[in-house]
Amino acid sequence: MFNCIREECGVFGIYSNTPTTVANSVFYGLYALQHRGQESCGIVVNDRGVFSYHKGLGLVNEVFDAESLGKLPQGKIALGHVRYSTTGNITASNTQPIVVRHIKGPMAIAHNGNLINALTLRREYELKGAIFHSTSDTEVISYAITEARLETGSIEKALEKAMGKIRGAYSLVIMSAKKLIAARDPDGFRPLCIGTLPDGGYVVASESCALDSIGADYLRDVKPGEIVVINENGLNSIETNCRKKGTMCVFEYVYFARPDSVINGASVHGARLRAGEFLAKEHPVDADIVIGVPDSGLDAALGFAHASGIPYGVGFIKNRYVGRTFIQPAQGMREDSVKIKLNVIKKVVEGKRVVLVDDSIVRGTTSGRIVALIRNAGAKEVHMRISSPPFISPCYFGTDIDSKDKLIACKMTVPEIAKHIGADTLGYLSAENVVRIAEEADTGFCSGCFTGKYPIEVPDEMPKDKFEQKLIE
Amino acid sequence: MFNCIREECGVFGIYSNTPTTVANSVFYGLYALQHRGQESCGIVVNDRGVFSYHKGLGLVNEVFDAESLGKLPQGKIALGHVRYSTTGNITASNTQPIVVRHIKGPMAIAHNGNLINALTLRREYELKGAIFHSTSDTEVISYAITEARLETGSIEKALEKAMGKIRGAYSLVIMSAKKLIAARDPDGFRPLCIGTLPDGGYVVASESCALDSIGADYLRDVKPGEIVVINENGLNSIETNCRKKGTMCVFEYVYFARPDSVINGASVHGARLRAGEFLAKEHPVDADIVIGVPDSGLDAALGFAHASGIPYGVGFIKNRYVGRTFIQPAQGMREDSVKIKLNVIKKVVEGKRVVLVDDSIVRGTTSGRIVALIRNAGAKEVHMRISSPPFISPCYFGTDIDSKDKLIACKMTVPEIAKHIGADTLGYLSAENVVRIAEEADTGFCSGCFTGKYPIEVPDEMPKDKFEQKLIE
Amino acid sequence: MFNCIREECGVFGIYSNTPTTVANSVFYGLYALQHRGQESCGIVVNDRGVFSYHKGLGLVNEVFDAESLGKLPQGKIALGHVRYSTTGNITASNTQPIVVRHIKGPMAIAHNGNLINALTLRREYELKGAIFHSTSDTEVISYAITEARLETGSIEKALEKAMGKIRGAYSLVIMSAKKLIAARDPDGFRPLCIGTLPDGGYVVASESCALDSIGADYLRDVKPGEIVVINENGLNSIETNCRKKGTMCVFEYVYFARPDSVINGASVHGARLRAGEFLAKEHPVDADIVIGVPDSGLDAALGFAHASGIPYGVGFIKNRYVGRTFIQPAQGMREDSVKIKLNVIKKVVEGKRVVLVDDSIVRGTTSGRIVALIRNAGAKEVHMRISSPPFISPCYFGTDIDSKDKLIACKMTVPEIAKHIGADTLGYLSAENVVRIAEEADTGFCSGCFTGKYPIEVPDEMPKDKFEQKLIE
Amino acid sequence: MFNCIREECGVFGIYSNTPTTVANSVFYGLYALQHRGQESCGIVVNDRGVFSYHKGLGLVNEVFDAESLGKLPQGKIALGHVRYSTTGNITASNTQPIVVRHIKGPMAIAHNGNLINALTLRREYELKGAIFHSTSDTEVISYAITEARLETGSIEKALEKAMGKIRGAYSLVIMSAKKLIAARDPDGFRPLCIGTLPDGGYVVASESCALDSIGADYLRDVKPGEIVVINENGLNSIETNCRKKGTMCVFEYVYFARPDSVINGASVHGARLRAGEFLAKEHPVDADIVIGVPDSGLDAALGFAHASGIPYGVGFIKNRYVGRTFIQPAQGMREDSVKIKLNVIKKVVEGKRVVLVDDSIVRGTTSGRIVALIRNAGAKEVHMRISSPPFISPCYFGTDIDSKDKLIACKMTVPEIAKHIGADTLGYLSAENVVRIAEEADTGFCSGCFTGKYPIEVPDEMPKDKFEQKLIE
Repeated sequence: MFNCIREECGVFGIYSNTPTTVANSVFYGLYALQHRGQESCGIVVNDRGVFSYHKGLGLVNEVFDAESLGKLPQGKIALGHVRYSTTGNITASNTQPIVVRHIKGPMAIAHNGNLINALTLRREYELKGAIFHSTSDTEVISYAITEARLETGSIEKALEKAMGKIRGAYSLVIMSAKKLIAARDPDGFRPLCIGTLPDGGYVVASESCALDSIGADYLRDVKPGEIVVINENGLNSIETNCRKKGTMCVFEYVYFARPDSVINGASVHGARLRAGEFLAKEHPVDADIVIGVPDSGLDAALGFAHASGIPYGVGFIKNRYVGRTFIQPAQGMREDSVKIKLNVIKKVVEGKRVVLVDDSIVRGTTSGRIVALIRNAGAKEVHMRISSPPFISPCYFGTDIDSKDKLIACKMTVPEIAKHIGADTLGYLSAENVVRIAEEADTGFCSGCFTGKYPIEVPDEMPKDKFEQKLIE
Repeated sequence: MFNCIREECGVFGIYSNTPTTVANSVFYGLYALQHRGQESCGIVVNDRGVFSYHKGLGLVNEVFDAESLGKLPQGKIALGHVRYSTTGNITASNTQPIVVRHIKGPMAIAHNGNLINALTLRREYELKGAIFHSTSDTEVISYAITEARLETGSIEKALEKAMGKIRGAYSLVIMSAKKLIAARDPDGFRPLCIGTLPDGGYVVASESCALDSIGADYLRDVKPGEIVVINENGLNSIETNCRKKGTMCVFEYVYFARPDSVINGASVHGARLRAGEFLAKEHPVDADIVIGVPDSGLDAALGFAHASGIPYGVGFIKNRYVGRTFIQPAQGMREDSVKIKLNVIKKVVEGKRVVLVDDSIVRGTTSGRIVALIRNAGAKEVHMRISSPPFISPCYFGTDIDSKDKLIACKMTVPEIAKHIGADTLGYLSAENVVRIAEEADTGFCSGCFTGKYPIEVPDEMPKDKFEQKLIE
Repeated sequence: MFNCIREECGVFGIYSNTPTTVANSVFYGLYALQHRGQESCGIVVNDRGVFSYHKGLGLVNEVFDAESLGKLPQGKIALGHVRYSTTGNITASNTQPIVVRHIKGPMAIAHNGNLINALTLRREYELKGAIFHSTSDTEVISYAITEARLETGSIEKALEKAMGKIRGAYSLVIMSAKKLIAARDPDGFRPLCIGTLPDGGYVVASESCALDSIGADYLRDVKPGEIVVINENGLNSIETNCRKKGTMCVFEYVYFARPDSVINGASVHGARLRAGEFLAKEHPVDADIVIGVPDSGLDAALGFAHASGIPYGVGFIKNRYVGRTFIQPAQGMREDSVKIKLNVIKKVVEGKRVVLVDDSIVRGTTSGRIVALIRNAGAKEVHMRISSPPFISPCYFGTDIDSKDKLIACKMTVPEIAKHIGADTLGYLSAENVVRIAEEADTGFCSGCFTGKYPIEVPDEMPKDKFEQKLIE
Repeated sequence: MFNCIREECGVFGIYSNTPTTVANSVFYGLYALQHRGQESCGIVVNDRGVFSYHKGLGLVNEVFDAESLGKLPQGKIALGHVRYSTTGNITASNTQPIVVRHIKGPMAIAHNGNLINALTLRREYELKGAIFHSTSDTEVISYAITEARLETGSIEKALEKAMGKIRGAYSLVIMSAKKLIAARDPDGFRPLCIGTLPDGGYVVASESCALDSIGADYLRDVKPGEIVVINENGLNSIETNCRKKGTMCVFEYVYFARPDSVINGASVHGARLRAGEFLAKEHPVDADIVIGVPDSGLDAALGFAHASGIPYGVGFIKNRYVGRTFIQPAQGMREDSVKIKLNVIKKVVEGKRVVLVDDSIVRGTTSGRIVALIRNAGAKEVHMRISSPPFISPCYFGTDIDSKDKLIACKMTVPEIAKHIGADTLGYLSAENVVRIAEEADTGFCSGCFTGKYPIEVPDEMPKDKFEQKLIE
């Protein structure tokens, strides 16, 4: 709720064996993926080759209502996207899915991730006369596929070839006139899974919780480097780009994904419980009660309680009705936005030694306010425990973990941070253990934001935060 | 979330010693009281005797934004209301606070509760030439005060007299040109508390969580029958109608109120933990895990776990982005609205004997779906525990606990209900214990909906559900 | 378009012999009456005694769309209103029709006009315990009818009695459970006419253009003082309050009414042509072309041209897309709002001696700008002719012709005004002739705003402009 | 108002010598050009090379308000567009201006007209890997410029080269990082003119009325084939593509343009007066009054009256408040949409022999209704006169004059049409005279829709009406 770290996208695609209200299914799927992006969303429906779409700025149930969903035709194939970032311009040009036409007809693309050679490729295409309508990577991917399509016999072959050119993190869902295609980068940074529909059709989604929401059964995850092609012949796979075990973003387990999702075979909720258990062992403390910061700290708090034997309690109530656009409190009143969203149950913490569990600390401001709330409610001691290691390095693979000067752990030691946020003690999960929280997952992990070591080399063209800027000026 | 039982209102009033953006404070207060009514809301500001208001259908942050709040003037006194019920007509005439003018100038009233002699009084006033603009009790209360005002020297004296005439449940906040007045019916059915502001001013609110949200300090509850008058002379009390200990609605503790509120000195969260503890003793079961139905069953589940020694687990994830106006799933898909709002964490319940705790069962439909979700996720056994007794009788005092033919417990025995919802066993908290969950509260309790015995006699004019009808036809 | 003088209301009622979509008919009727009030509007439908309504701030086609009209039920009787004035508070409490319930059931009232003893009556009712929800006269009328209803056998009898109590200008349409009632004050200040429907039903409307819009046939005007009762027995008339010939507002003919309306048997367009003809005779001038200020000056310009023999020309183009909420031009640009709305056809006026005809001058600012536009386009001379006399006195009978300090003719002589607005000559229609422009009309005229002599005595309680103020403070 | 023939676009560009609120100026300019396109609109502002835009479906004052205008930055250059046609899909992808980035940075284009080789060029670019986001010609123009830009030293040189490739009707306004560029196709089908700003800057607009609205002075029209480049060095012209006198669309004078505009030196109002005069000579009739159909028939009616000596009258009142999205009358009522928008002034036509002047007849339905209105109001005879020749051939140059099966004149003789619409006589302006109505204009004329003879050859790829279809299927 208060975290500054944001996932950049969620994707969803459906292939139904019979024409139906596929837009509604995408709507429910996006709804379940809303936590992956709250700034804009869109749905494209393919009705026998004719693509219709509706996109907009806002939450899924702000952009879509019965009227706008009703205007989208029935069809067999559809695509959806939720997105976090906007460019700052008052334009909607970066909303996804992007819908284009090339030599072979219409194509729609929804993308979760971030390319690390987007600028180079963009320049290359511009030199050939290409025109860009947005600043997003996804248009670069479109050109790479289109370019390859001129020399190959199918869109999946074109994508196979294009994947040799684009580098970075990408979980893609693509729709052509007759096919739904899903693909994941060879490193498998971002999740993408497949489900089956009762009618024999298929769904692909960033997380399994989206399958659950429409009653689809989880089939498997898309493999790193795999291209999955779904059409009237069913599901087929191209594995020529599958050459690695994969290095999944470990912060998906810590924070981004929904606890009820299963990613690469590992339960997200289970991983968070385990993070709490590790934390209890790494940073034990003598205390009366363990409470979590809602919502993302609750699971780890429960794990901490189990492993430590200290009772688990409910310390905070979150206002369920908090909207995104919150009116700022007037000056001179004692209100503050944390207090409006979160209230302490005084009876639970009064006179107690409290272990307070959260998933991460970014700048420290919010953590400081939360510690203060607990203290003002009468806690004797506050011991902060964080279920991931300190952020020390930016992420180049699809999240907004940012340049070093905005990360408190780049500027202070752990004791300094503890003092800064007003905690009696502070303990972070170690980098060794964070990659062990989802051990049953069939993948390696990227923990570059905690270690500065990335699975693939990051080129100089990636001056974190400056990407949009460069394109605009 | 899925419960059909709804509180009908929340009220909030503020008296600041200096003119300021009181509308903003009311906004935050209503925001914290949103759970008490989601259908409409309104704010009235008193700027040196001139009343300005904005009301509308929808949630607080739908009806109000920076622009509409900004148009309300600064002032020293303001009033707000959140409301549940609408009449079915496409009119906004029943939104509150109501703002009227009578012989002594402007008056605004916000009301939580329900009169049991409203029809009789309405008829009496109509015979004298009265005109009504709405079908709400609140307009009847306005006339009773106005009538008394003609014969008394102040609005508080008029209210004191009117309280001899109106009967039933009412927690009122009233604003005149120079005063803020709060009052509670002599039985104290609905909560109402007082807080102090840093500048020496006062706030009154249905629940203490609203005081917390604006940084006000809890002072005390308004007593049953008390009239509290706040003006430039500070706070004064009229206790001539205080003749009973009070019979607070016990379902406020079980379900309506926010867990972080303290009512009559008793923590709502604490009462719910205790309900779970009683329940564990009344209906013990051999099981592997205790899970609660979000959000209202979570506290009792934790209490059950503590008392039983069975581990507490998180079994469900609720979609945080569920709006009120949800688009119904299309026919022929396997989606259903419970599944879209609530997902099971399979890993937690798979192969387990599960104790499932919820606050109440109304018709049984939702409970049946939730039990099915748990079973489909692989639970071996499901033992349903309800932290309140079966509903067997309607409520006439401000909630929509309804006529008998809609309550499952009026039509089935407990074992029949268990079978109906698909649970292996089912246990309800006893009527003896439900009134013990908040024992530190300085009040008696109304548990009429569980027993059919009401603290005051309900007249024949109360043909539950037919009130609106009568007025319209 | 640029005039500051505004009519305050338009009313419309329908009685269909069979239940149908009466709301749609009212919608079209109000649409045709939109020029009489653009601030708010509303429609009430009577479906077998159940009243449903929708009201709002804005134009008819802003407040109503297919959805909101569709939500109103079918019925036999319905009422509508368009209104100009709002109080300045951000409230919608003064929108009409007002819908209330009294001892005999529901009643809705739509009112065009202004009472001159409203404050006195209001006080009288307040002393009996009355409550007011708005500051409008219409609520006072409701009380007068309700009071009389307690002592009479029908709503029309009650209205007949109430008309002895209320004084001023009122054209009323009233709906009870089974009747549609229309009435006009004994002086007949404001228009009100009756039409017949193909199915034998009836319509009443402020102007005949509203009958035309729904295909109703004009029957006759309601007489000054008459009460018309329409129910299943057809149309019946009560004429006990008919004691005068009537003194219709002459400015209805000059400006307020639509040119295609026929009022009291006289064509509005015809009256304006004749005003132009009189003007040509009173203030002849040697010139090359006659042009009118759109839209209200066009008819009089044509009349002037006919009578003078000077050719008629089209000198201005009005932007058809001007909305009500116009964005003000930024400072430093040469745009001004008159220029954006109105453009001169240079070719028509260049090098010419121009007679420019408009209906009235209020403050002189707009007239000055329009004269400047003509001069800048190259006119050699500009001779302004006004088709009504100078405003020298306020109107108390339902328009906003205002207190003397805002009327230029109260502060300057005609030559001074000519100089002020930049015209070579200026001529107003005389007060003698203005009451002769609609001579075929079966009524006398009120020209109080031009003469200061009113048909009925205006009491001291009428401190023009201060009415709202008094109520609020 | 009732005509089915629609112009497809209006364009506006501004170059201010100092950074200012250029978006506001474009807003007023588009406002004056609203009659050229009511379906969508957009504004792009260039703030030192950074392009920001806002576009949307609807009228200028629906899409833009103070808030959305305020979000656009100040700048020196800006571009705007109003558009008529949409594709039928619920997408906004065809709104203009289009804003893209190519190798040399950002470029925005606003286009009025229609290419006749768009499909061929589109195919050519697709074969090189091009991606299209819309189905509009404008994207093809973007590619042609971008392609040429790779081989030329400036955007104006690129445009000069691209004009050798694109064929058809185009009035373009283009914005690059530092320049505002205007261009017209070598045949000069659509208008485009230049104005000067007080600060020495420039404006370009489809019609001179847009210059007037912001206080700019008309400088001259852009020549057929000319490229006008405006930057910090002032205005420069490239005339290498100027090789013809030009063949301006004559229907701009008859109907499309605003009467207050001057195009190619000829007043539109003057041309319409003259059309009426020619008509009076070609088709004289003995009658009592001449009336025009609002708004487009009024000028020609006045010309007819002058030339014939028959008095000019105002026969219709148009409802000023008609919105675009009008609610259809319910079945069974006598309302019809023409009656709601237009009402006859009975007094003017009753018992008269009426000459009724309109600009054109498309299908004949509306004309039939209007003749019926006049007859029902009591006219003795109705003589219809049309100020342009019969439509017998489609337009390929930027209007929606359509395939032959929708044009009544392709299926009936003039006497048959007269009978069909219920007129006593019917006379059209001759094809010989229609090109003489604006004789002072410094251009030839295209009257292909009246003659079937086009200034340039139309290729087979132009299966009128099928363009969108082809792209989508």
